[in-house]
Amino acid sequence: MALNSSSRLAYAHPIGEIAGVIPGTLYKSREEVRLAKLHRPPMAGISYITDGPAESIVISGGYADDEDFGDIIIYTGQGGQDSPGGKQVKDQEVTRGNRALIFSVDHGSPIRIIRGSGGDPKYSPETGYRYDGLYFVLNHWFEKSKSGPLVIRFELNRISELVSETPVTSESGEAPAGNAQPGRKNVTTSAIKRDSSVADWVKKVHNDRCQFCSITLVTRVGTYSTGAHIQGLGRPHNGKDETSNLLCLCPNCHVLFDKGVLYIANDNKTVINIVSGENRLLNLEKIHVLDELAIAHHRLQVAGVE
Amino acid sequence: MALNSSSRLAYAHPIGEIAGVIPGTLYKSREEVRLAKLHRPPMAGISYITDGPAESIVISGGYADDEDFGDIIIYTGQGGQDSPGGKQVKDQEVTRGNRALIFSVDHGSPIRIIRGSGGDPKYSPETGYRYDGLYFVLNHWFEKSKSGPLVIRFELNRISELVSETPVTSESGEAPAGNAQPGRKNVTTSAIKRDSSVADWVKKVHNDRCQFCSITLVTRVGTYSTGAHIQGLGRPHNGKDETSNLLCLCPNCHVLFDKGVLYIANDNKTVINIVSGENRLLNLEKIHVLDELAIAHHRLQVAGVE
Repeated sequence: MALNSSSRLAYAHPIGEIAGVIPGTLYKSREEVRLAKLHRPPMAGISYITDGPAESIVISGGYADDEDFGDIIIYTGQGGQDSPGGKQVKDQEVTRGNRALIFSVDHGSPIRIIRGSGGDPKYSPETGYRYDGLYFVLNHWFEKSKSGPLVIRFELNRISELVSETPVTSESGEAPAGNAQPGRKNVTTSAIKRDSSVADWVKKVHNDRCQFCSITLVTRVGTYSTGAHIQGLGRPHNGKDETSNLLCLCPNCHVLFDKGVLYIANDNKTVINIVSGENRLLNLEKIHVLDELAIAHHRLQVAGVE
Repeated sequence: MALNSSSRLAYAHPIGEIAGVIPGTLYKSREEVRLAKLHRPPMAGISYITDGPAESIVISGGYADDEDFGDIIIYTGQGGQDSPGGKQVKDQEVTRGNRALIFSVDHGSPIRIIRGSGGDPKYSPETGYRYDGLYFVLNHWFEKSKSGPLVIRFELNRISELVSETPVTSESGEAPAGNAQPGRKNVTTSAIKRDSSVADWVKKVHNDRCQFCSITLVTRVGTYSTGAHIQGLGRPHNGKDETSNLLCLCPNCHVLFDKGVLYIANDNKTVINIVSGENRLLNLEKIHVLDELAIAHHRLQVAGVE
């Protein structure tokens, strides 16, 4: 995988590696970081392309909520502080750098990480700044900050894969060549153990009819739907694998629910589309009892609505 | 994972393990196999539940096209022979046992495998029959048989996981308990290396608008679609990871395309739903040139239409 492949989409600035810059390189100042083409803005923590992905972030301890575990970083988005590095006084919004980081999640677009000396001493340089290579923005969620207002948090995972391919530099927008005989690689992931009978039951109760849009996908051997966890399994949501935490959704509504575009209002029966404002009634069979705390969790942490 | 969990859906006959029957057990005759509750019909190769999954198959060399690799079996569906074990004179159809095996693919439902002495000598018992444990039905496709007419082929993979859980015997239809704190397991899979820039380009060219149903999923940070390979990557289709072999589809149409419910007619521009008969024109930007051989491959091998 060419990790700077997004440049094929002809972004105005390079995504992924900067030719000739090796992870671990130290810089005395933000200005040196900027001149190395690692991070464009002289002050802001997030460098991004309007209507596109994030390019890079500088982590230097500006947010009380940030957590650095080396290969994994829990990063807080931008905005809503009374002064840079100050108290959170307003909700953060899906705009500017935050929007770009969510775009990066959606597009699997890598970002460059630069750590400054103000960050967690365990992983930060003693002075100045250090380029620490590429990370994927794995997911995002909303959370109440220590001082109250909502912040947007991102889980970043270091890309451990060695990138040996020649950098792709074409910005012409022409079709990439691809691969006529793509090879294989072994991928080991830590998967949550799900009990398939839990989702099977929810889908069966609703006869594979989407609880949001009422569509039923018809196949040659029956019908098809997906089981969508309301409060996601595993980090960071740690939801339960139980029927009260599952919905029967069509794949399209499942995507929009997981992205927090669709959510269930606090009457526990109205489905709202946060982009279009459209709303409709949740289809719910009586035998299928939902966990209202899980719904509230999704509404706050995934949709960012209180 | 409880591999007999489908019994929660209150099927008339047990899916998965039969209590007390250990893989490797030998039987002198089909009648003994039947009395052990492993396989119900006295003659037919596939035991299945009407409108439900397959329960078990007996492999004993009846089809010239079957291939046995031990942990992996390429199994040919039923029907269309002039006599049992004879010449293929008619196309096989998505009915009876074939339909049930496709249902098993869709529902991740395990089937019991019994090998008879007539099968591949490398993996079959010398005499009589042997219960060889549970397999998943991984996928299915259509293929021209050695003698001409279409057959349906299934890839079965042995379930290597040890099943230690207590068998689930409830057939009441009540909600399964699930798991409030589901654990993790490491899963290693052999994944095809995809170049994400290939799918990115196809999605960008179509502005994330589904080439089949014209829907565009709108998120908070843009739009969303999936890249669907026409001729699938890897076994058994061995398609190319190139823009000419990809479509920009919404998740719903992607599912129906992969299941062969939607396919592109031999005019290379009409999208047909094989269940409803509905058809519409493919959305196709001029710059996006499609591989007509890949379309023909999908039409034959996935949709079963010549």
